[in-house]
Amino acid sequence: MERILSLARKRGVPVEFTDLITLDRLSTTRRHQGIVALVQPQSYASLDKILAKAEGKGEDPFIVILDRVLDPQNLGSILRTADGASVHGILIPKKGSACVTSAVHRASMGASAHVTVGRGNLFAAIKLLRKKRVRVVGLDASGEKDYFDADLTGPLALVVGGEDKGLSPVIKGKCDEVVRIPMIGAMPSLNVAIACAIILYEKVRQDRKRLE
Amino acid sequence: MERILSLARKRGVPVEFTDLITLDRLSTTRRHQGIVALVQPQSYASLDKILAKAEGKGEDPFIVILDRVLDPQNLGSILRTADGASVHGILIPKKGSACVTSAVHRASMGASAHVTVGRGNLFAAIKLLRKKRVRVVGLDASGEKDYFDADLTGPLALVVGGEDKGLSPVIKGKCDEVVRIPMIGAMPSLNVAIACAIILYEKVRQDRKRLE
Repeated sequence: MERILSLARKRGVPVEFTDLITLDRLSTTRRHQGIVALVQPQSYASLDKILAKAEGKGEDPFIVILDRVLDPQNLGSILRTADGASVHGILIPKKGSACVTSAVHRASMGASAHVTVGRGNLFAAIKLLRKKRVRVVGLDASGEKDYFDADLTGPLALVVGGEDKGLSPVIKGKCDEVVRIPMIGAMPSLNVAIACAIILYEKVRQDRKRLE
Repeated sequence: MERILSLARKRGVPVEFTDLITLDRLSTTRRHQGIVALVQPQSYASLDKILAKAEGKGEDPFIVILDRVLDPQNLGSILRTADGASVHGILIPKKGSACVTSAVHRASMGASAHVTVGRGNLFAAIKLLRKKRVRVVGLDASGEKDYFDADLTGPLALVVGGEDKGLSPVIKGKCDEVVRIPMIGAMPSLNVAIACAIILYEKVRQDRKRLE
């Protein structure tokens, strides 16, 4: 607590002491550990801004498109891993998706502050990305090849479906390629945040190997 | 609900109707959706049994050792991914670790029924595994090479540390090799279940590629 207060003082963040009832009310999760931060509501970027971020860094665009991920825990987890893999941005649809709420911030362990999130029409986004020669790869159980057999180097947008239904057929039809993660055990699928992490880091691996 | 009842009838599982208060009491998570199953307490296997399972399938042993993973959500998630990657067993210590509770069953989406979990002294287990020529690879931020630069094919035990402290130094010192996952963003680490999934599937990938 002392460290947080000292950091707040250093950065000029106003601190106010209050009672537990107020903290409980402010914290939607009730797991506030005695402190809550009041932040600006999440602002969402455009796809153009995400692409500009990649260009500004002189890197090939690396984008994750989430087709109706509903669970804040999963979205938070994906944000954290996306930061780890240095994704330039995540795109979610305006409807039928978890948004970046305080629960998502918390689940991301703060990574949400470092990852650009855009909101828009996924269909239009995929069309634009393909026009800009960004390869669009979908991840779905129906994929025709294993994810590690696909070339994930260079400009890439990875499209991942939600918890219940996976990729919607209309989105799947717009991908350059659809890949699957081999399921060798008894269960039919992996958790969406886990699946996303596996393929994000496969791209990291392939990019590193290409540079060697 | 009807499908569950019909399956229970088919398999000879006795069904009893009760009130909500009893369900709330029986279900420790309170998220029971109107039904709970009473199962035998989790029984734990020995390392020998896990090794025998691999031998019975004519496969190289593929084992995950969890050094003090505390969060039931993480343990459940690891169990689900371990099933997907067809791990022969997971080994946890007798103390200072989450056990396979109902919360873990739930978090694993039922995968816990398909994965053998052993409990024992990790130090002794690693010693035995190395004696049996199973390569023991630790995953830790202090690792000397990236996980994809290590040879993960063949008999493998993967050692993963807990949420707070990573691998304990005494365990780390006993590994054949310690690898890291490259962190390219702002955050210092990944979630333990995510990290575990990335390296489990890297072994799946390497094994597949070796067979090609």
